[in-house]
Amino acid sequence: MTLLVDRVAVIGVGLIGGSFGMALKKRGLVREVVGVGRHPDRLQKAVDLCAVDRWTTDLQAGVRDADLIYVATPVGREIDFVRAVSSFAKPGCVITDAGSTKGEICRGGDSAVTEGVHFVGGHPMAGSEATGVEAGSPDLFVGATYVLTPSDRTDTRALSIVHGLAESIGSRVVVMSPEAHDRCVAVISHLPHLIAAALMETARGHSETDPQVFDLIAGSFRDMTRVAGSSPELWRDICLTNVDAIASAAENFQRALGEGLSEILSGDAQGFEDWFARAKQARDAIANRPLPGS
Amino acid sequence: MTLLVDRVAVIGVGLIGGSFGMALKKRGLVREVVGVGRHPDRLQKAVDLCAVDRWTTDLQAGVRDADLIYVATPVGREIDFVRAVSSFAKPGCVITDAGSTKGEICRGGDSAVTEGVHFVGGHPMAGSEATGVEAGSPDLFVGATYVLTPSDRTDTRALSIVHGLAESIGSRVVVMSPEAHDRCVAVISHLPHLIAAALMETARGHSETDPQVFDLIAGSFRDMTRVAGSSPELWRDICLTNVDAIASAAENFQRALGEGLSEILSGDAQGFEDWFARAKQARDAIANRPLPGS
Repeated sequence: MTLLVDRVAVIGVGLIGGSFGMALKKRGLVREVVGVGRHPDRLQKAVDLCAVDRWTTDLQAGVRDADLIYVATPVGREIDFVRAVSSFAKPGCVITDAGSTKGEICRGGDSAVTEGVHFVGGHPMAGSEATGVEAGSPDLFVGATYVLTPSDRTDTRALSIVHGLAESIGSRVVVMSPEAHDRCVAVISHLPHLIAAALMETARGHSETDPQVFDLIAGSFRDMTRVAGSSPELWRDICLTNVDAIASAAENFQRALGEGLSEILSGDAQGFEDWFARAKQARDAIANRPLPGS
Repeated sequence: MTLLVDRVAVIGVGLIGGSFGMALKKRGLVREVVGVGRHPDRLQKAVDLCAVDRWTTDLQAGVRDADLIYVATPVGREIDFVRAVSSFAKPGCVITDAGSTKGEICRGGDSAVTEGVHFVGGHPMAGSEATGVEAGSPDLFVGATYVLTPSDRTDTRALSIVHGLAESIGSRVVVMSPEAHDRCVAVISHLPHLIAAALMETARGHSETDPQVFDLIAGSFRDMTRVAGSSPELWRDICLTNVDAIASAAENFQRALGEGLSEILSGDAQGFEDWFARAKQARDAIANRPLPGS
């Protein structure tokens, strides 16, 4: 088997970066994985967990011989790292990222790369509320959706390399524009996180009136508020890089909720049943689709 | 062991009524369970599945010798059935119900019962999107929250009988007023169902712009919209008997969501992080509570 890439540098060896390294190494997809980060103890743990072969805290030294640079830093710092590694990358190098929003980072990546260096935006939709390389797994991406977001300027060969690696680690690859990606994740991920937090806050506020409210919690409430337990820092960065799409999704959601509420308030039994039945029909249609990772 | 009750009549042998019968019979808690309904084929199936010992379509014949009458009809018809069985019940009989809202039904039950007959409102928070006695289980109530909602007029002995049975089939019993119950379930069950439906409708509407949106669905969206697959008829009846509490909960939810959104729109990173962190703190506090049924 010919290797798609020889040496990979992973910038930010946390849950995603660490799992990407583990996934490549377990499957023998690359010759060497180099971890780059700020904390020697965490980087050494990444070696111990077979996420990387060696590590460095020197960004330039870590990336200059890499054929593929995988930027998996917190989303708020990704553009800075893409810019920084672009200036150190060797000709022919492919840079990709794992950020949860794609518009800003892809525009930044396209403008940052130097002659002969290629940027491909990516978003592996894997992971959970857990963080750190300790929570990583070589099979984290198996069955997960991995979105690639080429722009007009994306190099075709670079795209096919990242596409091939993502598939090789078990992901289901979806290709779409950065803008379409951001609109979609606003609807199916970012807005749901805001809703979960707002619903949790509603229940917390209500507990001041009826302290027994939490005794009545059932699976539905637990499921619907699960992601309110996610990292506030992470979601701050994600939401602030996708403001317009979230605002638009929220507007549509509030209109839909308002419709259902007004049927109830006006006592329109048939109207409410029809409203709920439309949602049920859409939900039933997705119920049997293959389930990627959370 | 002394039986708390001798003969039980179950009105409406569906998922809840059928499982209640199975739970009593499996544990030998009563001498006989009589199923009352409209459809001989479904009632015979309840016998085949050991949910009831015998059945009848004659309401009066089914309940006149019962020591406990368990009304598990659709919530929209419960008051009518409580009234009807009250007039046929023998002195000392305890009537309880399994309705998802309690204010209307408890007021109706208190006013309907005749001298010597007692009403105790109940809400077993068990079940799922499934329906029918075929989906029933003698262990459906194990670990589930079972709310009892006595009013000022509730007979203490009647309450203790229903309390004892609910515990004997494995439930965790919570006692609260009908009004507090309705406020709490509006927050932790009814509103979440409306939110799930509205979120599903938002995604469906968005799919007209970006057909790939459903390719990006992850566990969070799936979890948050699961209950949008519930029965529109059931939720029509539930919501229309709890209008005021739902409206109040929705108002608080919309305010909470609006706060988070305005932090994003104004680009207030710290404000948004604090907003999300408050919700996370509340969510973390419930994360390790024992999980009752859905």
